[in-house]
Amino acid sequence: MQLLEDRIARDGVVKSGNVLKVDSFLNHQIDIDLLDALGAEWARLFQDKPITKILTIEASGIGIACMAALHFDVPVVFAKKTQSLNLDGEMLCTKIDSFTHKKTFDVIVAKRFISPDDHILIIDDFLANGCALRGLIELVGQAGAVVEGLGVAVEKGFQGGGDDLRARGYRVESLAIIESMDAESGAICFRTA
Amino acid sequence: MQLLEDRIARDGVVKSGNVLKVDSFLNHQIDIDLLDALGAEWARLFQDKPITKILTIEASGIGIACMAALHFDVPVVFAKKTQSLNLDGEMLCTKIDSFTHKKTFDVIVAKRFISPDDHILIIDDFLANGCALRGLIELVGQAGAVVEGLGVAVEKGFQGGGDDLRARGYRVESLAIIESMDAESGAICFRTA
Repeated sequence: MQLLEDRIARDGVVKSGNVLKVDSFLNHQIDIDLLDALGAEWARLFQDKPITKILTIEASGIGIACMAALHFDVPVVFAKKTQSLNLDGEMLCTKIDSFTHKKTFDVIVAKRFISPDDHILIIDDFLANGCALRGLIELVGQAGAVVEGLGVAVEKGFQGGGDDLRARGYRVESLAIIESMDAESGAICFRTA
Repeated sequence: MQLLEDRIARDGVVKSGNVLKVDSFLNHQIDIDLLDALGAEWARLFQDKPITKILTIEASGIGIACMAALHFDVPVVFAKKTQSLNLDGEMLCTKIDSFTHKKTFDVIVAKRFISPDDHILIIDDFLANGCALRGLIELVGQAGAVVEGLGVAVEKGFQGGGDDLRARGYRVESLAIIESMDAESGAICFRTA
Protein backbone atom coordinates (compact mmCIF):
# COMPACT_ATOMS: atom_id res chain seq x y z
CA MET A 1 0.00 0.00 0.00
CA GLN A 2 1.68 3.13 -1.28
CA LEU A 3 0.37 5.44 1.46
CA LEU A 4 1.87 3.31 4.23
CA GLU A 5 5.15 2.67 2.39
CA ASP A 6 5.58 6.39 1.81
CA ARG A 7 4.94 7.10 5.47
CA ILE A 8 7.42 4.47 6.63
CA ALA A 9 10.02 5.80 4.18
CA ARG A 10 9.47 9.32 5.48
CA ASP A 11 9.00 8.83 9.23
CA GLY A 12 10.25 5.31 10.04
CA VAL A 13 13.65 5.03 11.75
CA VAL A 14 15.85 1.95 11.39
CA LYS A 15 17.70 0.98 14.58
CA SER A 16 20.29 -1.70 15.13
CA GLY A 17 19.03 -5.20 15.98
CA ASN A 18 16.45 -5.24 13.18
CA VAL A 19 14.30 -2.66 14.95
CA LEU A 20 12.10 -0.34 12.91
CA LYS A 21 10.64 2.55 14.89
CA VAL A 22 7.28 3.76 13.62
CA ASP A 23 6.27 5.31 16.89
CA SER A 24 5.51 8.73 15.47
CA PHE A 25 2.48 7.46 13.54
CA LEU A 26 1.64 3.84 14.34
CA ASN A 27 2.33 2.60 17.85
CA HIS A 28 2.94 5.40 20.33
CA GLN A 29 1.61 8.46 18.59
CA ILE A 30 -1.18 7.35 16.23
CA ASP A 31 -2.19 9.02 12.97
CA ILE A 32 -5.92 8.29 12.92
CA ASP A 33 -6.40 9.15 9.24
CA LEU A 34 -3.67 6.67 8.33
CA LEU A 35 -5.28 3.96 10.49
CA ASP A 36 -8.61 4.71 8.88
CA ALA A 37 -7.03 4.16 5.45
CA LEU A 38 -5.46 0.87 6.57
CA GLY A 39 -8.84 -0.30 7.82
CA ALA A 40 -10.51 0.59 4.53
CA GLU A 41 -7.84 -1.32 2.61
CA TRP A 42 -8.29 -4.50 4.67
CA ALA A 43 -12.07 -4.19 4.23
CA ARG A 44 -11.49 -4.11 0.47
CA LEU A 45 -9.02 -7.02 0.51
CA PHE A 46 -11.20 -9.26 2.71
CA GLN A 47 -14.59 -8.23 1.28
CA ASP A 48 -15.18 -11.82 0.08
CA LYS A 49 -14.80 -13.21 3.62
CA PRO A 50 -17.68 -13.47 6.14
CA ILE A 51 -15.75 -11.78 8.97
CA THR A 52 -17.70 -11.74 12.26
CA LYS A 53 -15.01 -10.47 14.62
CA ILE A 54 -11.54 -8.94 14.67
CA LEU A 55 -8.95 -10.35 17.08
CA THR A 56 -5.81 -8.47 18.06
CA ILE A 57 -3.38 -8.30 20.97
CA GLU A 58 -2.66 -5.47 23.36
CA ALA A 59 -1.39 -2.87 23.27
CA SER A 60 -0.41 -1.47 19.89
CA GLY A 61 -2.79 -3.68 17.90
CA ILE A 62 -5.87 -2.21 19.57
CA GLY A 63 -6.11 1.13 17.78
CA ILE A 64 -5.51 -0.43 14.38
CA ALA A 65 -8.04 -3.18 15.05
CA CYS A 66 -10.69 -0.71 16.21
CA MET A 67 -10.33 1.46 13.14
CA ALA A 68 -10.50 -1.63 10.93
CA ALA A 69 -13.58 -2.85 12.81
CA LEU A 70 -15.36 0.34 11.87
CA HIS A 71 -15.04 -0.66 8.21
CA PHE A 72 -16.11 -4.28 8.82
CA ASP A 73 -18.87 -3.32 11.29
CA VAL A 74 -17.88 -6.11 13.69
CA PRO A 75 -16.66 -6.15 17.31
CA VAL A 76 -13.00 -6.28 18.31
CA VAL A 77 -11.56 -8.64 20.91
CA PHE A 78 -8.08 -7.98 22.17
CA ALA A 79 -5.98 -10.72 23.75
CA LYS A 80 -4.33 -9.73 27.01
CA LYS A 81 -0.74 -10.31 27.99
CA THR A 82 -0.45 -11.34 31.55
CA GLN A 83 2.16 -12.81 33.82
CA SER A 84 -0.40 -13.87 36.41
CA LEU A 85 -3.38 -15.92 35.34
CA ASN A 86 -5.84 -14.67 37.94
CA LEU A 87 -8.71 -13.57 35.73
CA ASP A 88 -12.04 -15.19 36.33
CA GLY A 89 -14.10 -17.26 33.92
CA GLU A 90 -12.99 -19.74 31.33
CA MET A 91 -10.02 -18.60 29.29
CA LEU A 92 -8.32 -19.49 26.05
CA CYS A 93 -4.58 -19.36 26.82
CA THR A 94 -1.29 -19.63 25.01
CA LYS A 95 2.27 -18.39 25.33
CA ILE A 96 3.91 -15.86 23.03
CA ASP A 97 7.61 -14.99 22.82
CA SER A 98 7.97 -11.25 22.31
CA PHE A 99 10.63 -10.09 19.84
CA THR A 100 10.45 -6.56 21.23
CA HIS A 101 10.50 -7.39 24.92
CA LYS A 102 12.67 -10.53 24.81
CA LYS A 103 10.38 -12.43 27.12
CA THR A 104 7.48 -14.85 27.11
CA PHE A 105 3.95 -13.75 27.95
CA ASP A 106 0.89 -15.76 28.82
CA VAL A 107 -1.77 -14.49 26.46
CA ILE A 108 -5.46 -14.93 27.18
CA VAL A 109 -8.90 -14.33 25.77
CA ALA A 110 -12.11 -14.99 27.68
CA LYS A 111 -13.61 -18.07 26.05
CA ARG A 112 -17.07 -16.52 25.78
CA PHE A 113 -15.81 -13.90 23.30
CA ILE A 114 -14.85 -16.34 20.53
CA SER A 115 -17.43 -18.94 19.56
CA PRO A 116 -17.18 -21.86 17.11
CA ASP A 117 -19.42 -19.86 14.75
CA ASP A 118 -16.96 -16.99 14.47
CA HIS A 119 -15.01 -16.12 11.33
CA ILE A 120 -12.02 -14.23 12.63
CA LEU A 121 -9.79 -11.64 11.03
CA ILE A 122 -6.57 -11.27 13.04
CA ILE A 123 -5.04 -7.78 12.95
CA ASP A 124 -1.69 -6.59 14.27
CA ASP A 125 0.68 -3.69 13.73
CA PHE A 126 3.85 -5.74 13.15
CA LEU A 127 4.79 -9.15 11.80
CA ALA A 128 8.40 -10.19 12.30
CA ASN A 129 9.04 -13.83 13.20
CA GLY A 130 5.29 -14.42 13.53
CA CYS A 131 5.16 -15.52 17.18
CA ALA A 132 2.33 -13.17 18.12
CA LEU A 133 0.17 -14.13 15.13
CA ARG A 134 0.79 -17.86 15.64
CA GLY A 135 -0.32 -17.39 19.25
CA LEU A 136 -3.53 -15.65 18.16
CA ILE A 137 -4.19 -18.39 15.57
CA GLU A 138 -3.77 -20.93 18.37
CA LEU A 139 -6.38 -19.12 20.50
CA VAL A 140 -8.87 -19.08 17.61
CA GLY A 141 -8.23 -22.80 17.10
CA GLN A 142 -8.91 -23.51 20.78
CA ALA A 143 -12.27 -21.80 20.38
CA GLY A 144 -13.09 -23.92 17.32
CA ALA A 145 -13.53 -20.80 15.19
CA VAL A 146 -12.18 -20.09 11.68
CA VAL A 147 -9.23 -17.83 10.89
CA GLU A 148 -10.28 -16.11 7.66
CA GLY A 149 -7.08 -14.17 7.32
CA LEU A 150 -4.46 -11.96 8.91
CA GLY A 151 -4.12 -8.23 8.35
CA VAL A 152 -0.76 -6.72 9.24
CA ALA A 153 0.37 -3.13 8.89
CA VAL A 154 4.14 -3.62 8.68
CA GLU A 155 5.74 -6.97 7.86
CA LYS A 156 9.48 -7.37 8.21
CA GLY A 157 9.70 -9.82 5.29
CA PHE A 158 13.33 -10.72 5.93
CA GLN A 159 12.45 -12.25 9.30
CA GLY A 160 10.35 -14.92 7.58
CA GLY A 161 7.29 -15.07 9.81
CA GLY A 162 4.89 -13.92 7.11
CA ASP A 163 6.11 -16.34 4.46
CA ASP A 164 5.97 -19.17 6.97
CA LEU A 165 2.30 -18.39 7.66
CA ARG A 166 1.54 -18.15 3.92
CA ALA A 167 3.25 -21.52 3.38
CA ARG A 168 0.91 -22.96 6.00
CA GLY A 169 -2.07 -21.75 3.98
CA TYR A 170 -3.04 -18.57 5.79
CA ARG A 171 -3.98 -15.50 3.84
CA VAL A 172 -1.71 -12.75 5.15
CA GLU A 173 -2.36 -9.22 3.88
CA SER A 174 0.52 -7.02 4.97
CA LEU A 175 0.09 -3.44 3.79
CA ALA A 176 3.85 -2.82 3.70
CA ILE A 177 6.48 -5.56 3.50
CA ILE A 178 10.06 -4.59 4.23
CA GLU A 179 12.50 -6.65 2.19
CA SER A 180 15.60 -5.19 3.78
CA MET A 181 16.67 -2.30 5.94
CA ASP A 182 19.97 -0.90 7.08
CA ALA A 183 20.57 0.81 10.40
CA GLU A 184 23.73 2.61 9.26
CA SER A 185 22.38 4.24 6.13
CA GLY A 186 18.75 4.27 7.26
CA ALA A 187 17.72 2.71 3.94
CA ILE A 188 14.43 0.79 3.81
CA CYS A 189 13.57 -1.41 0.78
CA PHE A 190 10.03 -2.68 0.25
CA ARG A 191 8.99 -5.95 -1.37
CA THR A 192 7.28 -5.36 -4.69
CA ALA A 193 4.33 -7.47 -5.73
CA MET B 1 -25.22 9.39 28.60
CA GLN B 2 -28.27 7.17 28.36
CA LEU B 3 -26.82 4.78 25.77
CA LEU B 4 -23.83 3.92 27.95
CA GLU B 5 -25.83 3.73 31.20
CA ASP B 6 -28.28 1.35 29.54
CA ARG B 7 -25.45 -0.83 28.31
CA ILE B 8 -23.76 -0.94 31.73
CA ALA B 9 -27.10 -1.78 33.36
CA ARG B 10 -27.66 -4.59 30.85
CA ASP B 11 -24.18 -6.09 30.43
CA GLY B 12 -22.05 -4.81 33.32
CA VAL B 13 -21.32 -7.25 36.15
CA VAL B 14 -20.64 -6.12 39.71
CA LYS B 15 -17.96 -8.13 41.50
CA SER B 16 -16.78 -7.93 45.09
CA GLY B 17 -14.01 -5.44 45.89
CA ASN B 18 -15.70 -2.56 44.01
CA VAL B 19 -14.98 -4.19 40.66
CA LEU B 20 -17.31 -3.52 37.72
CA LYS B 21 -16.73 -5.83 34.75
CA VAL B 22 -17.57 -4.25 31.41
CA ASP B 23 -15.37 -6.57 29.41
CA SER B 24 -18.10 -7.69 27.03
CA PHE B 25 -18.32 -4.26 25.38
CA LEU B 26 -15.64 -1.86 26.60
CA ASN B 27 -12.27 -3.30 27.54
CA HIS B 28 -11.76 -6.85 26.30
CA GLN B 29 -14.42 -7.28 23.67
CA ILE B 30 -15.14 -3.85 22.17
CA ASP B 31 -18.43 -2.65 20.69
CA ILE B 32 -17.18 -0.28 18.00
CA ASP B 33 -20.55 1.41 17.45
CA LEU B 34 -20.73 2.20 21.16
CA LEU B 35 -17.19 3.63 21.13
CA ASP B 36 -18.09 5.69 18.08
CA ALA B 37 -21.06 7.13 19.99
CA LEU B 38 -18.86 7.94 23.01
CA GLY B 39 -16.40 9.72 20.72
CA ALA B 40 -19.17 11.76 19.14
CA GLU B 41 -20.46 12.78 22.58
CA TRP B 42 -17.05 13.99 23.79
CA ALA B 43 -16.65 15.91 20.51
CA ARG B 44 -19.96 17.63 21.29
CA LEU B 45 -19.07 18.32 24.93
CA PHE B 46 -15.60 19.70 24.16
CA GLN B 47 -16.46 21.51 20.92
CA ASP B 48 -15.52 24.86 22.50
CA LYS B 49 -11.97 23.66 23.26
CA PRO B 50 -9.05 23.88 20.82
CA ILE B 51 -8.01 20.23 21.23
CA THR B 52 -4.82 19.37 19.30
CA LYS B 53 -4.16 15.87 20.64
CA ILE B 54 -5.73 13.08 22.69
CA LEU B 55 -3.66 11.39 25.39
CA THR B 56 -4.56 8.03 26.89
CA ILE B 57 -2.83 5.11 28.57
CA GLU B 58 -2.42 1.56 27.38
CA ALA B 59 -4.10 -0.78 26.99
CA SER B 60 -7.85 -0.34 27.33
CA GLY B 61 -7.84 3.40 26.75
CA ILE B 62 -6.43 3.06 23.25
CA GLY B 63 -9.52 1.94 21.36
CA ILE B 64 -11.71 4.54 23.01
CA ALA B 65 -9.16 7.28 22.38
CA CYS B 66 -8.79 6.31 18.71
CA MET B 67 -12.51 6.36 18.08
CA ALA B 68 -12.75 9.73 19.83
CA ALA B 69 -9.83 11.06 17.79
CA LEU B 70 -11.76 10.33 14.62
CA HIS B 71 -14.39 12.85 15.78
CA PHE B 72 -11.82 15.48 16.82
CA ASP B 73 -9.56 14.84 13.79
CA VAL B 74 -6.41 14.91 15.93
CA PRO B 75 -3.67 12.33 16.66
CA VAL B 76 -3.69 10.03 19.68
CA VAL B 77 -0.71 9.46 21.95
CA PHE B 78 -0.84 6.58 24.37
CA ALA B 79 1.33 6.48 27.48
CA LYS B 80 3.15 3.21 28.03
CA LYS B 81 3.36 1.26 31.23
CA THR B 82 6.79 -0.15 31.76
CA GLN B 83 8.77 -1.70 34.54
CA SER B 84 12.08 -1.16 32.76
CA LEU B 85 12.94 2.30 31.50
CA ASN B 86 15.12 1.29 28.55
CA LEU B 87 13.42 3.18 25.75
CA ASP B 88 15.52 5.61 23.82
CA GLY B 89 15.05 9.35 23.45
CA GLU B 90 13.84 11.88 25.98
CA MET B 91 10.86 10.73 27.99
CA LEU B 92 8.17 12.26 30.16
CA CYS B 93 7.84 9.89 33.13
CA THR B 94 5.68 9.42 36.18
CA LYS B 95 4.45 6.63 38.42
CA ILE B 96 0.88 5.37 38.58
CA ASP B 97 -0.65 3.06 41.18
CA SER B 98 -3.01 0.65 39.49
CA PHE B 99 -6.29 -0.08 41.26
CA THR B 100 -6.86 -3.14 39.04
CA HIS B 101 -3.38 -4.62 39.24
CA LYS B 102 -2.47 -3.54 42.79
CA LYS B 103 0.98 -2.41 41.73
CA THR B 104 2.89 0.67 40.65
CA PHE B 105 3.90 1.24 37.02
CA ASP B 106 6.39 3.63 35.51
CA VAL B 107 4.43 5.42 32.81
CA ILE B 108 6.17 7.16 29.94
CA VAL B 109 5.51 9.26 26.87
CA ALA B 110 8.22 10.26 24.40
CA LYS B 111 8.80 13.96 24.99
CA ARG B 112 8.62 14.81 21.28
CA PHE B 113 4.96 13.77 21.12
CA ILE B 114 3.63 16.46 23.49
CA SER B 115 4.76 20.02 22.86
CA PRO B 116 4.14 23.20 24.90
CA ASP B 117 1.72 24.28 22.13
CA ASP B 118 -0.54 21.29 22.62
CA HIS B 119 -4.07 21.45 24.03
CA ILE B 120 -4.67 17.97 25.37
CA LEU B 121 -7.84 16.01 25.93
CA ILE B 122 -7.14 13.06 28.23
CA ILE B 123 -9.33 10.00 27.57
CA ASP B 124 -9.65 6.80 29.59
CA ASP B 125 -12.13 3.99 30.01
CA PHE B 126 -12.37 4.09 33.81
CA LEU B 127 -12.04 6.64 36.59
CA ALA B 128 -11.95 5.25 40.13
CA ASN B 129 -9.54 6.87 42.57
CA GLY B 130 -8.07 8.94 39.76
CA CYS B 131 -4.46 7.73 39.94
CA ALA B 132 -4.15 7.06 36.21
CA LEU B 133 -5.63 10.42 35.22
CA ARG B 134 -3.49 12.34 37.73
CA GLY B 135 -0.46 10.59 36.23
CA LEU B 136 -1.45 11.64 32.72
CA ILE B 137 -2.07 15.22 33.90
CA GLU B 138 1.43 15.16 35.42
CA LEU B 139 2.93 14.10 32.06
CA VAL B 140 1.13 16.92 30.22
CA GLY B 141 2.41 19.35 32.84
CA GLN B 142 5.98 18.15 32.36
CA ALA B 143 5.61 18.89 28.65
CA GLY B 144 4.33 22.41 29.40
CA ALA B 145 1.11 21.72 27.50
CA VAL B 146 -2.49 22.52 28.53
CA VAL B 147 -5.00 19.96 29.82
CA GLU B 148 -8.28 21.12 28.27
CA GLY B 149 -10.31 18.38 29.88
CA LEU B 150 -10.75 14.73 30.71
CA GLY B 151 -13.16 12.37 28.98
CA VAL B 152 -14.00 9.19 30.87
CA ALA B 153 -16.37 6.42 29.85
CA VAL B 154 -17.23 4.99 33.28
CA GLU B 155 -16.63 6.87 36.53
CA LYS B 156 -17.04 5.07 39.82
CA GLY B 157 -18.28 8.19 41.60
CA PHE B 158 -18.21 6.62 45.05
CA GLN B 159 -14.42 6.24 44.87
CA GLY B 160 -14.00 10.02 44.76
CA GLY B 161 -11.32 10.43 42.10
CA GLY B 162 -13.55 12.36 39.70
CA ASP B 163 -14.85 14.82 42.27
CA ASP B 164 -11.30 15.40 43.50
CA LEU B 165 -10.22 16.33 39.96
CA ARG B 166 -13.27 18.61 39.52
CA ALA B 167 -12.46 20.30 42.84
CA ARG B 168 -8.98 21.00 41.47
CA GLY B 169 -10.54 22.80 38.50
CA TYR B 170 -10.39 20.16 35.79
CA ARG B 171 -13.32 19.64 33.49
CA VAL B 172 -14.16 15.95 33.75
CA GLU B 173 -16.81 14.61 31.37
CA SER B 174 -17.72 11.09 32.46
CA LEU B 175 -20.38 9.57 30.24
CA ALA B 176 -21.69 7.33 33.02
CA ILE B 177 -21.13 7.95 36.73
CA ILE B 178 -21.88 5.12 39.11
CA GLU B 179 -23.16 6.40 42.43
CA SER B 180 -23.30 2.99 44.07
CA MET B 181 -23.23 -0.67 43.21
CA ASP B 182 -23.80 -3.89 45.06
CA ALA B 183 -22.02 -7.15 44.34
CA GLU B 184 -24.66 -9.29 46.07
CA SER B 185 -27.76 -7.99 44.30
CA GLY B 186 -25.93 -6.82 41.18
CA ALA B 187 -27.66 -3.44 41.47
CA ILE B 188 -25.99 -0.43 39.82
CA CYS B 189 -27.19 3.12 40.58
CA PHE B 190 -26.14 6.04 38.37
CA ARG B 191 -25.59 9.63 39.45
CA THR B 192 -28.21 11.93 37.99
CA ALA B 193 -27.30 15.41 36.80
